[in-house]
Formats: sequence, C-alpha cells, structure tokens
Amino acid sequence: MKIAILTFQGFNEIDSLVAFRMLKWLQKPDWDITVCCPEAEVTSMGGLTIRAQSSLEEASDADAVMVGSGSLTREIVEDEAIMSRIKLDPSRQVIAAQCSGTLMLAKLGLLGGVPACTDSATKPWVKAAGVEVLNQPLVAHGNVATAGGCLASAYLTGWTIAMLDNIETASKALYYFAPVGEKDGFRARALDNISPYLPERVYASPRRKPVDAA
Amino acid sequence: MKIAILTFQGFNEIDSLVAFRMLKWLQKPDWDITVCCPEAEVTSMGGLTIRAQSSLEEASDADAVMVGSGSLTREIVEDEAIMSRIKLDPSRQVIAAQCSGTLMLAKLGLLGGVPACTDSATKPWVKAAGVEVLNQPLVAHGNVATAGGCLASAYLTGWTIAMLDNIETASKALYYFAPVGEKDGFRARALDNISPYLPERVYASPRRKPVDAA
Repeated sequence: MKIAILTFQGFNEIDSLVAFRMLKWLQKPDWDITVCCPEAEVTSMGGLTIRAQSSLEEASDADAVMVGSGSLTREIVEDEAIMSRIKLDPSRQVIAAQCSGTLMLAKLGLLGGVPACTDSATKPWVKAAGVEVLNQPLVAHGNVATAGGCLASAYLTGWTIAMLDNIETASKALYYFAPVGEKDGFRARALDNISPYLPERVYASPRRKPVDAA
Repeated sequence: MKIAILTFQGFNEIDSLVAFRMLKWLQKPDWDITVCCPEAEVTSMGGLTIRAQSSLEEASDADAVMVGSGSLTREIVEDEAIMSRIKLDPSRQVIAAQCSGTLMLAKLGLLGGVPACTDSATKPWVKAAGVEVLNQPLVAHGNVATAGGCLASAYLTGWTIAMLDNIETASKALYYFAPVGEKDGFRARALDNISPYLPERVYASPRRKPVDAA
C-alpha cells in the first residue's frame, strides 16, 4: 500500500502531519507512507523546513493521496509547472483533501458537481471554482473526501484508513490519538462524521455498527 | 515573548507541531516561536526530518517552554549530555508538557508531588518516577501544565496561550482550529479542560465566564 501526503511550500503543519502520524502509528509493514513534495525541502507557513520523502510524480501510482493545506495554495493551483506534475485518478486511488487541499482538487477537476468541505478562509475560493461548500467537517463521494478545519484532519485520516483497511482499524487509531479522558466521545464523533461516507466493504463481517467496532 | 517547543530525535509530529501551528497562527509580531532541538536537524518517530530553529540552551530564557513527546524520551531522559542542557524554571517560565514530555518534567524535578497527565504508553514510566497520573486530558499547577493523548495538544496550547496572553485569545485560536460544524462544541470542551487551571489575571476585565469569552 502506497500513500502520499502532498505537502507544498507554505504547508499547514497540522494538516499534513496529523495524517502522517496517524498513518505511521498503524505500523503496517507493507504501508509505504511518505510526505510528498514538489522540491527536496519545503518550508511550512510557520517557517519550519522539512525534507521531502517522495516527489509529486510518485503520487501518480499511490493507492491513496492525501492533499494537505497551506498558505500558498491559491498561487500553487495557478502554477502549471507544479500542477502538471500531479496526476490523480479517483477510479483507482483514494483521494482525501484537507482545507485548501479542496481547492486543489477543484482545480484538478476531481470534485465533479458535488458539494465539498473546506476551511472558512478557503471557502470563497472553492465557491469561485464552482463547488458548493458544506458546513460540516467532512464529506466524501466515492473515493474522494474533503475536510474543513485543521483538527478535522484526524477525521479525514480516519476515513482514509477505513477506506484502505477497515472501520475497526480506523476506530482504534481515532481512539488512540484522542485526549485522555475523552476517548469514547471523540471516537464516537469521528465515526459519526466518517461512517456515512464509507462503503459496505469497510465493515468487518458480520456487519456491525461502526461505534461498536473497536 | 519567546516560546520554545522542545523537539527531540524520535519526536511525535502531532505533539510538537499542533502547538507550533496554533501559536504561529496568532501572528503576534513580538512572539518569537521556535522548534527547539538538541541538534541542527531531528527526525521524527515517523521518519520525517526537520530543521531546528533554536537550540536547547535557548530555552533557558524563554518565557514559555512546551515539551513535545516522542518515541525516544525514555532514553533521552537518561542522557546526561542532553538533560544537562535543559534549564527550566517554573518560577519565571510557563512550562507545558505533552505525553512523554511529562516524563521529562518528572526527571527534571519540575512536577513536585502533584498529579500529572500523560498518555497510556508513558503512564507506567511517569508512575515509576513517583508521579500520580490522572485520567483527564490536562492538569496544571501554577505555571506547569501536562497533557495526555496526542490531540490534547490543542488544549495544552490553548492553556499556554491563555497563560501568556488571555483567555479570549486562547478561545479564538481553539475555535479557528476546530473542525467546521463542530467549533462551538470543541471550544466549550477545550475551555472546560483548561479554565480550572488558569489564574484570575487571564480573564478580561470585567470578568466573564470563559465559554462566553470569544
């Protein structure tokens, strides 16, 4: 399983790295999870420089692509030199975008005519790209999910884990990362947000309700 | 205002960088916020390499020090070459530790005889260091707070912001980072967790209840 977390210059540290940590925590030996960047190093919106682990071209054959957010997304989506390197295909890839990552999916023509989620700052730009914006943390249509609000990145990662593995694995991860003393409530909220957008196959057989899964 | 986020080899990406992003988001021109490391570069528990922005010695005169977590904390607290470089003083610094950061504060003798918060994996080690562990996201005694569960890092950062500025600033940050559609509930939970551990001075005059503050 190959998973690329698209992370650009000006990236939002939370949006890329909550996903990275939660996926890595699973310790699945056959999951290759990388922070995927346009250059060898990228610097976050807060000024933190990180070293890329894969290049944008490598996202083309990933099983899942998570698109992080950042302060420069509006400029990046107009930069043909970067955008032409991103080749995604929702018919064979799970695709999940956080906050301004939603604008990138809109510009790549991957959202179709359906509503999406994003943050309040990006909302006008996503609407200008012709996409309706919902007042909820997460929505998915088939293999493509979008989320809004930095800390919804835990939900988006939970949805991605469920899509790639199953709901029980997602449920365990969400429980682990929740604040101590609030784990049941956090997991229940997360599963309420993601379970409407998961196909039947992600549930263990025999079918159980997601909130009872872990 | 100088704020150092202590980040070691094997660091947990969420614990250091949720704090970094939330603090940077405030865009306070006189707040100098750095990821503070023992070496010029450190690599996270997930294998992500970042460039340090300040050195451990620089934490000594910070106004606030946040201690991140990681997979190597148990080894680091036994490494005198690193520990001797960390000089913290809760009488003049706000100090906040996340998950295994609590073990570091215990080893530095900064927790006194009072209970603390940490994650489930670190709990036995904190108890072995003679500190009682609470089943809640956050606790503070005076200028020293501890938190448990990666996503409690938002609460710990909220507490730190309130201590350095005021409750309204913390409330606004918590609201901004919450998932879309869940912002009121998230902020209320966060303020319920941090407000019992804040001094009177952090409330705007005239005194208002924290949940009404922003």
